[in-house]
Amino acid sequence: MMRTRPLKVALLGCGVVGSEVARIMTTHADDLAQRIGAPVELAGVAVRRPSKVREGIDPALVTTDATALVKRGDIDVVVEVIGGIEPARSLITAAFEHGASVVSANKALLAQDGAALHAAAEEHGRDLYYEAAVAGAIPLIRPLRESLAGDKVNRVLGIVNGTTNFILDKMDSTGAGYQEALDEATALGYAEADPTADVEGFDAAAKAAILAGIAFHTRARLDDVYREGMTEVTAADFRSAKEMGCTIKLLAICERSKDGASVTARVHPAMIPLTHPLASVRGAYNAVFVESDAAGQLMFYGPGAGGAPTASAVLGDLVAVCRNRLNGATGPGESAYAALPVSPMGEVVTRYHISLDVADKPGVLAQVATVFAEHGVSIDTVRQQGKDGEASLVVVTHRASDASLSGTVEALRKLDTVRGVASIMRVEGE
Amino acid sequence: MMRTRPLKVALLGCGVVGSEVARIMTTHADDLAQRIGAPVELAGVAVRRPSKVREGIDPALVTTDATALVKRGDIDVVVEVIGGIEPARSLITAAFEHGASVVSANKALLAQDGAALHAAAEEHGRDLYYEAAVAGAIPLIRPLRESLAGDKVNRVLGIVNGTTNFILDKMDSTGAGYQEALDEATALGYAEADPTADVEGFDAAAKAAILAGIAFHTRARLDDVYREGMTEVTAADFRSAKEMGCTIKLLAICERSKDGASVTARVHPAMIPLTHPLASVRGAYNAVFVESDAAGQLMFYGPGAGGAPTASAVLGDLVAVCRNRLNGATGPGESAYAALPVSPMGEVVTRYHISLDVADKPGVLAQVATVFAEHGVSIDTVRQQGKDGEASLVVVTHRASDASLSGTVEALRKLDTVRGVASIMRVEGE
Repeated sequence: MMRTRPLKVALLGCGVVGSEVARIMTTHADDLAQRIGAPVELAGVAVRRPSKVREGIDPALVTTDATALVKRGDIDVVVEVIGGIEPARSLITAAFEHGASVVSANKALLAQDGAALHAAAEEHGRDLYYEAAVAGAIPLIRPLRESLAGDKVNRVLGIVNGTTNFILDKMDSTGAGYQEALDEATALGYAEADPTADVEGFDAAAKAAILAGIAFHTRARLDDVYREGMTEVTAADFRSAKEMGCTIKLLAICERSKDGASVTARVHPAMIPLTHPLASVRGAYNAVFVESDAAGQLMFYGPGAGGAPTASAVLGDLVAVCRNRLNGATGPGESAYAALPVSPMGEVVTRYHISLDVADKPGVLAQVATVFAEHGVSIDTVRQQGKDGEASLVVVTHRASDASLSGTVEALRKLDTVRGVASIMRVEGE
Repeated sequence: MMRTRPLKVALLGCGVVGSEVARIMTTHADDLAQRIGAPVELAGVAVRRPSKVREGIDPALVTTDATALVKRGDIDVVVEVIGGIEPARSLITAAFEHGASVVSANKALLAQDGAALHAAAEEHGRDLYYEAAVAGAIPLIRPLRESLAGDKVNRVLGIVNGTTNFILDKMDSTGAGYQEALDEATALGYAEADPTADVEGFDAAAKAAILAGIAFHTRARLDDVYREGMTEVTAADFRSAKEMGCTIKLLAICERSKDGASVTARVHPAMIPLTHPLASVRGAYNAVFVESDAAGQLMFYGPGAGGAPTASAVLGDLVAVCRNRLNGATGPGESAYAALPVSPMGEVVTRYHISLDVADKPGVLAQVATVFAEHGVSIDTVRQQGKDGEASLVVVTHRASDASLSGTVEALRKLDTVRGVASIMRVEGE
């Protein structure tokens, strides 16, 4: 049964992703109509530079007035691929007020104002879908909020930023330093001119907030996510990792506490064993591990960015939202009923790899070990290397809270025999 | 907003999966109610042996009359985890006729009669969901039919049977023969007493039929799937694979033809490069690669069987189906509009690894190469090994149709200098 009157789509933004969305809507129009049960029509495209030639898009559809477009009243679905907080937030809110459902790829906005946007969608009985906001083409939001809806997710652990994975992979495989690897990523178009959002972990942290919210049925915002970038990871860190049979990845980690009463969300570089499936995720690919009570360990892998992959996720949402509209229904909205508190980083429990520069004389190891013991941090292995009166101590701990580890490190720095703390890195994925 | 009147669920079958479904429905009742928007109540459990004690299930709910249960008229969702064709088919049909939606884990039935069951669901305006039928807990059906609904899938390539993957992994890692590895799988509970459905590829073929249907929006049945089991894979095949930098997996492969006008579906053992992500799928795990126009390469990985993982998939469907019911809507039904023909195995194009026992005398290679050339099969590499008047020739071909390869092999067998064809194996994943 096919409805002949088309559903009208307004596209906000026509860059790398938006132009792919428009292209696929045109070239695959028949398939989309069959899968939705009605044709979809591109009713308007809001851009900043209307003079730019956009192949395959009727110039009559192009406008610079995004606000007027979303307020037209005849728009069924607004696709927002502008990014950033404003004007995206106002446009999405206006879209709901004027009867449209929304498909967005905007991780920053969802991580900051997801609750308010979901509330606006619900108030107006409309859908807000955003599969493309996390891990590009990889189906992750839908599996978490629908496939695992009858399960209890305990942990989400993933590589959700392709730029930093490209850089770290390059450092791992060539021994290059951070700057050299970043330069190559920039030259190849994997890193932006200003790479801050990627390398400082802001992008991954936004995704972690979204994932924690959905996985734990709890509100989590960007501010709730502990964040450490990967600009201080060195070639020496990779050598240390190799000695441990590990590599280094920038991980987003969302965990339910052991007693189930709270959750944590964090982004930081970490060592993971080479035997862990995430260790072999190469280049700009993304992959996310999900651990749940009944399903066990699942992994989702694919391209985490790029115009076409992101457009694939946007269009999957578009089909779902259009189908919901024809059904007079809505899909799952925000689910925050569990309302678990998000604990601070100090309560996170994990393992640590610590490199210390110490004086090469008897009794240093005993002193250092005492400090660990006093802070309740149990040592797994220690390796000593000495030369010319200087020595290094590499300590790998058992599981301990981040607060205990911080206390330990602070005390270590005060020891006369400790010249410096060369590096501290968390060890995950065991 | 929570509805207080519960949705009523009838459970058909209470074995490994069914008992887990019942357990989670009880222990996670509050979470399920929150996620659905209404409580769900186990209204009846149909079993064959009512006298068996079932922990946590009210004996008053247990019945041997499954037909009466599905016909009660007050059942909202029937969960079918009996398996097999009958009585499951009649019960599901009766469920639709009496107003229930259905969640099933029954791959054999879906692969044989999916079209008729979908038609019955649609006729009565009800849902038929079956995530658990393919690759256990791994979200695969939903990503294919919803997340990728705006994309064009070209290929699905996966390990979808845990028993055979356990056996092949064991053969690979220990050098064991098939029987020895099967015995271990049986002892550990990974293989059933009668392992035919697994080792002869029937189970994987049913899953391939379901995947091809959904991926290509086309009807595909078990009969459309070419099937070769893995009982004839030998330790020598693994040695050959290793020499090529490969391992051997039982793969389910669904492909769209290059011109897009037809599809193929097949299950057989194949060599794949060790660098392919599927090569490192160990033990009884499953993993499925999906290749599409826009998204590129995606992989889904997880436990492919087991009571709890399968129950996770069943319960995800249960939540979705219950939500649809509260919405007065249905999810995506069968999508077979593309109606592409399923081509026979002869039209499949891939690469081949062929071991020949030949006479050790001059001119044999020239003879053999001529036969390949006459059948239009281009040779990539040849390796000759001779001893005591006997020799072996290992030929790896470029891409060729299965029909051309069959013709080549038939002609080779007729050569006086060819003593025998020791093995033929397809090479995939490049």
